[in-house]
Amino acid sequence: MNLKEQCEDLARRARAASRQLATARGDWRNRWLTGSASALESRAADIIKANSLDLAAAEQARLAPAMVDRLRLDAARIRACADGLREIAGLPDPVGRVIDSNVRPNGLHVHKVSVPLGVIFFIYESRPNVTVDAAGLCVKSGNAIILRGGKEALHTNTALHDILAGELTRAGLPADAVQLVTTVDRAAVGELLQLDKWIDLVIPRGGESLIRRVAEEAAMPVLKHYQGNCHIVVDRDADLAMAERIIVNAKCQRPGVCNAAESLLVHADIARQFLPHIADVLRRKGVELRGCPVTRELAAHAVAATEADYAAEFLDLILSVKVVANLEEAIEHISRYGSGHTEAIITGNLASAQRFTTAVDSSAVMVNASTRFNDGYEFGLGAEIGISTDKFHARGPCGLQELCSYKYIVTGDGQVRE
Amino acid sequence: MNLKEQCEDLARRARAASRQLATARGDWRNRWLTGSASALESRAADIIKANSLDLAAAEQARLAPAMVDRLRLDAARIRACADGLREIAGLPDPVGRVIDSNVRPNGLHVHKVSVPLGVIFFIYESRPNVTVDAAGLCVKSGNAIILRGGKEALHTNTALHDILAGELTRAGLPADAVQLVTTVDRAAVGELLQLDKWIDLVIPRGGESLIRRVAEEAAMPVLKHYQGNCHIVVDRDADLAMAERIIVNAKCQRPGVCNAAESLLVHADIARQFLPHIADVLRRKGVELRGCPVTRELAAHAVAATEADYAAEFLDLILSVKVVANLEEAIEHISRYGSGHTEAIITGNLASAQRFTTAVDSSAVMVNASTRFNDGYEFGLGAEIGISTDKFHARGPCGLQELCSYKYIVTGDGQVRE
Repeated sequence: MNLKEQCEDLARRARAASRQLATARGDWRNRWLTGSASALESRAADIIKANSLDLAAAEQARLAPAMVDRLRLDAARIRACADGLREIAGLPDPVGRVIDSNVRPNGLHVHKVSVPLGVIFFIYESRPNVTVDAAGLCVKSGNAIILRGGKEALHTNTALHDILAGELTRAGLPADAVQLVTTVDRAAVGELLQLDKWIDLVIPRGGESLIRRVAEEAAMPVLKHYQGNCHIVVDRDADLAMAERIIVNAKCQRPGVCNAAESLLVHADIARQFLPHIADVLRRKGVELRGCPVTRELAAHAVAATEADYAAEFLDLILSVKVVANLEEAIEHISRYGSGHTEAIITGNLASAQRFTTAVDSSAVMVNASTRFNDGYEFGLGAEIGISTDKFHARGPCGLQELCSYKYIVTGDGQVRE
Repeated sequence: MNLKEQCEDLARRARAASRQLATARGDWRNRWLTGSASALESRAADIIKANSLDLAAAEQARLAPAMVDRLRLDAARIRACADGLREIAGLPDPVGRVIDSNVRPNGLHVHKVSVPLGVIFFIYESRPNVTVDAAGLCVKSGNAIILRGGKEALHTNTALHDILAGELTRAGLPADAVQLVTTVDRAAVGELLQLDKWIDLVIPRGGESLIRRVAEEAAMPVLKHYQGNCHIVVDRDADLAMAERIIVNAKCQRPGVCNAAESLLVHADIARQFLPHIADVLRRKGVELRGCPVTRELAAHAVAATEADYAAEFLDLILSVKVVANLEEAIEHISRYGSGHTEAIITGNLASAQRFTTAVDSSAVMVNASTRFNDGYEFGLGAEIGISTDKFHARGPCGLQELCSYKYIVTGDGQVRE
């Protein structure tokens, strides 16, 4: 088989598996999750051995130490993967849920029922624990998954996939429900992205260039997760101690993640009181400020912000700052520079909170809370496969429900249309 | 401005209008709906005059009489358009609805709230009443709409748009919320399909070639409505009188629509009893049968079915027929040839009904009811903008809810993440 035929064969088998999986009982899917968890732990030595090959190659290729660390799986991390699967097993079954229903005047019972999407193509980089998480979420939601990890993790992913696929058979589920693309030929991705006949959704998780490439090439829908240029607005009526606590948390607790704050907008009426203080606090935390002229007047160590700074997702201890004349200017600024991910307002004023949450068009809009809460676990949705910055199908944290579609099941006793 | 600049200007204005519309009160949107309904009626003479220009051109171009009739607007049809808008005004507001909510252990209130999608590009053919329907549904759901109708209806659509846009201003809403592409240059569609920066969704409504072209070119999501190759399965345990009634309704009541039946699958155990009779009934209704060898044995006038017949959406008084050994063969056949639109089973057996509704992956699966019920009104969703054969975002009838996205509104009192 040439590459194209290999990809078609893989996708066709995923489709066939997805049809079986869609009607498999929830306890079979859970049995696979808990069985896989145990198997990962009992075969940890095999995984670590495969992982050591990837680590050696990464060191030889002089990958950055942070990258090498992301690649590493030790006993503790394997246990965490296993616990993740057990946690997914404990979540409610997202399949077969009656989302809505009504009985029509003619006696027809109309039920809107959640069903799996079908086949999901998941493209991701480095961290091999994602292999386990993504497979767990997809099988739990009745979807077949085609995994395409980074080539630097291929030995590890192959060992993990071997265990997961073996457990599918033991649980009475089709082994093709979890498949791994093992060729390092990048053209395989391009081939698979054309197979919308068998693949229902592609989820790229990684840098923006990967996501853009996939979005451009894919014939099927793409669940996109672009950057998070998250704003915090400190309103005139803010509790300033609360504002400080939230800003420090949103900027400093984990600056490298998409729901960290990247930009601070301060109402002019409290700027003179608040900005010198928060600038000082952030300076001591090692945060570089890039501000507008008024900001620089009030915080001497702030450097001048450029247009690019206001649009940037720094993922680092850098914060752009702007003093705004009023709430409307803050909303305009967010509409212009924001990425639709997460924005927060700190205010004690009801009208400001209402105006902000209504007018700001982002996946999550927070009032008096840290932007860092935009997360599947924190929202009570359970494990997530990503945070969507799209508005179509799923927005914000994507958990089990977001990996489902629905169908209408209509039951009658002979009704015909007049 | 050249064409590209014109399209960008139009899309940018739609985006600005959509931001205003998203925060406009429901009663303003309803005021526009009822105001437009009255204006359509009071300015019926203008519309009919514009329509007569399109009709004259259509007759000169020797359009088929059925096409010319679809194009025609008279006082009664204008009144129906106006009543449609009044009906939409009476539907519940789809915007700002709390879809789901929970209070987290840390006291955060998480609300999942419906919001408009933003800007919708609607491409459609012929019937000018669709102009009014689509604008009504979009504005009611807080979306701006860009309308691109067929060039054969341009005078009529211009007159209708003129009234709708004027009423926007009178209702205190942005006039750019409803825009019409008036250039006949087909390249305008291509330009607009690239503007995913400002346009959130495109809905093509028309023939399959239009939909395919749009799906291939569009940079933004597409709500697709492909063909409906709808099946009826008559199970071994069917009430045969009910089966007859439903088959005749699904095939003959309106053969030209997407939820009409195109294929009949009969369980072998009752074929000898049922097929000669139903074949005779259908013959008398003018239905041509294209069947498998067993069908042809039992119904002498049936012609031989080809592979293409089993895959076809006839939209005509033609029905493909196959005798199947059991329910599983019927499900396999549907999986192979079906279009995922609507399938029905006629059965008195609970296990058959459950197996069919679980295993068949179509937007609507009916038990003992006509396929013709797959419709927004019939499901109690109100007016619809189309029936989606996609599984992503919206499936089946797309009404006001399906024209919405959602966002998370999170309210705290100073929570930060540990």
